Amino acid sequence: MMDKKLIAVIGGGQSSNEESKVAEKVGRLLARNGVILVCGGLGGVMKAACRGASAEGGMTIGILPGDNRRAANRYVQIPIVTGMGFARNVVVVKSAQAVIAIGGSYGTLSEIAYALQYGIPVIGLNTWSLSKNGQPDSSIILAQSPEDAVDLAISLTAV
Amino acid sequence: MMDKKLIAVIGGGQSSNEESKVAEKVGRLLARNGVILVCGGLGGVMKAACRGASAEGGMTIGILPGDNRRAANRYVQIPIVTGMGFARNVVVVKSAQAVIAIGGSYGTLSEIAYALQYGIPVIGLNTWSLSKNGQPDSSIILAQSPEDAVDLAISLTAV
Amino acid sequence: MMDKKLIAVIGGGQSSNEESKVAEKVGRLLARNGVILVCGGLGGVMKAACRGASAEGGMTIGILPGDNRRAANRYVQIPIVTGMGFARNVVVVKSAQAVIAIGGSYGTLSEIAYALQYGIPVIGLNTWSLSKNGQPDSSIILAQSPEDAVDLAISLTAV
Amino acid sequence: MMDKKLIAVIGGGQSSNEESKVAEKVGRLLARNGVILVCGGLGGVMKAACRGASAEGGMTIGILPGDNRRAANRYVQIPIVTGMGFARNVVVVKSAQAVIAIGGSYGTLSEIAYALQYGIPVIGLNTWSLSKNGQPDSSIILAQSPEDAVDLAISLTAV
Repeated sequence: MMDKKLIAVIGGGQSSNEESKVAEKVGRLLARNGVILVCGGLGGVMKAACRGASAEGGMTIGILPGDNRRAANRYVQIPIVTGMGFARNVVVVKSAQAVIAIGGSYGTLSEIAYALQYGIPVIGLNTWSLSKNGQPDSSIILAQSPEDAVDLAISLTAV
Repeated sequence: MMDKKLIAVIGGGQSSNEESKVAEKVGRLLARNGVILVCGGLGGVMKAACRGASAEGGMTIGILPGDNRRAANRYVQIPIVTGMGFARNVVVVKSAQAVIAIGGSYGTLSEIAYALQYGIPVIGLNTWSLSKNGQPDSSIILAQSPEDAVDLAISLTAV
Repeated sequence: MMDKKLIAVIGGGQSSNEESKVAEKVGRLLARNGVILVCGGLGGVMKAACRGASAEGGMTIGILPGDNRRAANRYVQIPIVTGMGFARNVVVVKSAQAVIAIGGSYGTLSEIAYALQYGIPVIGLNTWSLSKNGQPDSSIILAQSPEDAVDLAISLTAV
Repeated sequence: MMDKKLIAVIGGGQSSNEESKVAEKVGRLLARNGVILVCGGLGGVMKAACRGASAEGGMTIGILPGDNRRAANRYVQIPIVTGMGFARNVVVVKSAQAVIAIGGSYGTLSEIAYALQYGIPVIGLNTWSLSKNGQPDSSIILAQSPEDAVDLAISLTAV
């Protein structure tokens, strides 16, 4: 098996300019480190991350919710078509050895939850924070910058 | 189509005594109101809720992650076998018209996230609370008691 | 766990008059035998089987491919909403202890294949027949009538 | 989007020597034609096809049923981890623009059925043949050799 790492970038299908910049930078850094980028294949954070990775010659995989490979953003090199709706979120997460969450809405939250459930490291950039019964849950590892997020993700990648 | 409501009870596969009491009470109240209980079919909160519903003659459905119907708790009357692992969490949530979350770990969090993503009301009893970028997200409707939770769930059930 | 058997009726979402008659009869006979009917929840054979079961006071479960419980035929008492497209075929089959196939197209064929893969008995009424490399595969048990199909299904139901 | 074609090779997780030779040859030919190979990621026909593609420098994707990327055969370059059991068969098929079936058992039959249901061309090499109510169904396009199969698959790939 090829020894490349797969790291997921998750976040909203619509994103602010700031989130897009961060995602693109994360994509670039993953590619420069020889990491394969896996994501949900659509717009917003996913598209920006794929654009960054592609610009550096990296490989990008999009795990699509719908039935049509053409729904993938143009920077997805390998579209995986599930037809399973948001149940595809499980596949995005399980295929990755670490997850970088950028902003995001409830779909992203479901992916964070799945990753934590499976023991896959989650690095957060301005994303959800969690608490239960008033106690903060610090399982999401907070990163200060795209560089920090990528360094953390690579170092925490399960071997 | 039979006009009965389906409401999901979600929560950990292992539960504290207090959580089990709450879940059993929620199950009883759902059954008394003619609601069909849907859950993940396993132990902890799921089992306690099914026990409560069964004691009142209510109907219980367990959407199982594994391959074996025998994994259902003994109070599940209709085991649905998915073999899809935690991707079954999507099915638990989507089959319900409202969701009551009791305690719970990351699996429960993924179900809360899915429900919010799909616009299905989530009522919480000592469960997760969420914030993003320091802003609290108040989408989970807080209940004070099992009675309160069931009243809210029934009244918020999408028609 | 309630000791009722679950048996799936599978077949096309559009059906001939003859297929509908057969499916309705199968539904009636399952209900009279106290069996819970599980199916894909839509029209054609599925609807006719549910209609027959309902007419005899039986219980009917529809495992739906889409996002909307309202897509279930009117004789489905418990709609299970998967949002997973035809991946829901796996759930229809795995939830059943035996499968009765009536006519059907490729979706039905995928369900037959899954059932055989999992070792769940398949009883056929004018449905697909299979061969591999010129050798007939006789795993589908041929029934001569609705009565015969239901008798076979009940007797072959895994304990 | 990268303009490479994705073609699935499906077949048994255990294969005869003859089937393995055929599958390896198919893998080689796909790679030489710049096609990305997608498969179920395990042994038998899947492994042989990946070995052939890898030997020619082609790219191989394995859509795994289980939870562990290490279950992929050693020639899978990109393991996609679904954790969904055989529901992953849907993803193998839907991600491909054409499908080549080599031998195979019921899992392969379910993939053939899904492909035909979705209108994805299926090319067969000594695999299942189908009939319904005594009428042969000729939807599976019969190939005479690996070369023939790959030529057909590429020419029939939906644009």
